[in-house]
Amino acid sequence: ELLDKNLLLKLKNKEAITLDGKKVMLYANIGNVKDLGFVLESGAAGIGLFRSEFIFLERTDYPTEEEQFEIYKTVAETMAEKPVIIRTMDIGADKQCDYFNLEPEENPALGYRAIRICLTRPELFKTQLRALFRASVYGNIQVMYPMIANLFEVQKIKELVAEVETELTEAGIQYRLPKQGLMIETPAAALISDTLAKEVDFFSIGTNDLSQYTLAIDRQNPHLDTFYDSHHPGLLSLIKLVVKNAHSAGIWVGICGELGADPSLTQEFLAMGIDELSVSPGNVLPIKKVICESNITEYEREIYAN
Amino acid sequence: ELLDKNLLLKLKNKEAITLDGKKVMLYANIGNVKDLGFVLESGAAGIGLFRSEFIFLERTDYPTEEEQFEIYKTVAETMAEKPVIIRTMDIGADKQCDYFNLEPEENPALGYRAIRICLTRPELFKTQLRALFRASVYGNIQVMYPMIANLFEVQKIKELVAEVETELTEAGIQYRLPKQGLMIETPAAALISDTLAKEVDFFSIGTNDLSQYTLAIDRQNPHLDTFYDSHHPGLLSLIKLVVKNAHSAGIWVGICGELGADPSLTQEFLAMGIDELSVSPGNVLPIKKVICESNITEYEREIYAN
Ligand SMILES: [Mg+2]
Ligand SMILES: [Mg+2]
Repeated sequence: ELLDKNLLLKLKNKEAITLDGKKVMLYANIGNVKDLGFVLESGAAGIGLFRSEFIFLERTDYPTEEEQFEIYKTVAETMAEKPVIIRTMDIGADKQCDYFNLEPEENPALGYRAIRICLTRPELFKTQLRALFRASVYGNIQVMYPMIANLFEVQKIKELVAEVETELTEAGIQYRLPKQGLMIETPAAALISDTLAKEVDFFSIGTNDLSQYTLAIDRQNPHLDTFYDSHHPGLLSLIKLVVKNAHSAGIWVGICGELGADPSLTQEFLAMGIDELSVSPGNVLPIKKVICESNITEYEREIYAN
Repeated sequence: ELLDKNLLLKLKNKEAITLDGKKVMLYANIGNVKDLGFVLESGAAGIGLFRSEFIFLERTDYPTEEEQFEIYKTVAETMAEKPVIIRTMDIGADKQCDYFNLEPEENPALGYRAIRICLTRPELFKTQLRALFRASVYGNIQVMYPMIANLFEVQKIKELVAEVETELTEAGIQYRLPKQGLMIETPAAALISDTLAKEVDFFSIGTNDLSQYTLAIDRQNPHLDTFYDSHHPGLLSLIKLVVKNAHSAGIWVGICGELGADPSLTQEFLAMGIDELSVSPGNVLPIKKVICESNITEYEREIYAN
């Protein structure tokens, strides 16, 4: 146990690189600024999923642009020049926020949530974008958009991003346009990932939602454990398709769901070509260990032989 | 208007066959025995979706094997030798039945429903199977299973089917094993349809559920109309994949969701190779008209040229 701990600590400052030289961006997920310390201690090379909705959930009214700006700036500065991938608010479904005044829904997981709220309430969304673009000056902030299902959503986001840029420029406010990516977490997005890849800088596959929609199973429903196969071959084939489409368009692709921290799948993901894994801070070193002990060329040879 | 009506009536006894000779099985959906008259008048060549759950929903306690048997027998006899494809009970989600005593769920559409109930309450399921297999003697009954997501579910169904056969045989009760198919209505099932196709006699694609899971949108949620693209290219690519996999395994494949009655997609579905369409009785003649006026070879040539 102690020995194990020492081994893991040795890995802390090592790069996540396989025996045959594939370098992996190994990042940490974070759901609150308070957890920044854990990230810094975790051995992660950056933040792969910053869940910005916590800023909304811990308040009783909408956070202002300034309030958001200060938080994003703090995180960017604290992480120095390491990447900080911030997901725009994923409100709705199991993350309800009273002052949004959302109507109750029959199936909130299939409901009015995340980017769907942002695109129908553009002022709310633009406030977050302004805060993000301004904070982007202070570090390596990147932005990703949750629950994309359609191409037109991405086009609409781009229009709003252009509006924000114009407004900031005209007001003489300092900002930097961050790299922007999409969460691939609906089967629809995965299936049109060839088209979507041409529009953005990166993909992050949200395996929690992707698996619940693919299997049509609410992961939080305790009666369905028998039917929930987290390694379902259909899910894995979707992930493989997304990786292929990302690479064809020349963008990187990562995983930020729980599956990314499943050591029994790490080699398979790397063999698919996954470039990034973002896991909870406590999982960074165990996954780094698996990566550093893996030989993907060898792994593929074995798979191929079978 | 009147002229149109006369034209449609002329189609009633015509086969659904394209100008270039592709014959389509054009069937009707039915949700209640009372609607049998509409089916007989509709010009449909059979019943493509008999929603057996209505037998459960209109009662205050579980229907007995005899009660079910009588209903299935009546339908089979009334339809003479025309196919009657009966879906085993799809209880749960938006079809709640008090005496099933199901616990409330956060997301019923992603919940404990249909085959998931049947496989965890096998006695209930076997009662329905016994009634179906016995009624099968009186006509061309076929059975299909809803909400499949995993291969092991199909294997478990086969075990239960074998048990029912043994029990009926040992009791000296007359029965016939009907042809059996799967509803393909979860992205998971569509994605592993190559594997599933080897296990059954046919596929019926349930586009209502398949689209809501693929898009991660509850179709009954009025706030999401903007985001709900019923012709989403990802959905169409899944349907195409299912058709290809069905045909590779030598089985037929149909559509029994609302999309099957969308005349703007009929040619595309036929070009994909769809063998069967099951629509509401009122949509049979309009869709038959589209089929009879279509030339798929020509259509494909145009698509290819563009
Ligand atoms: Mg998600
Ligand atoms: Mg259905």
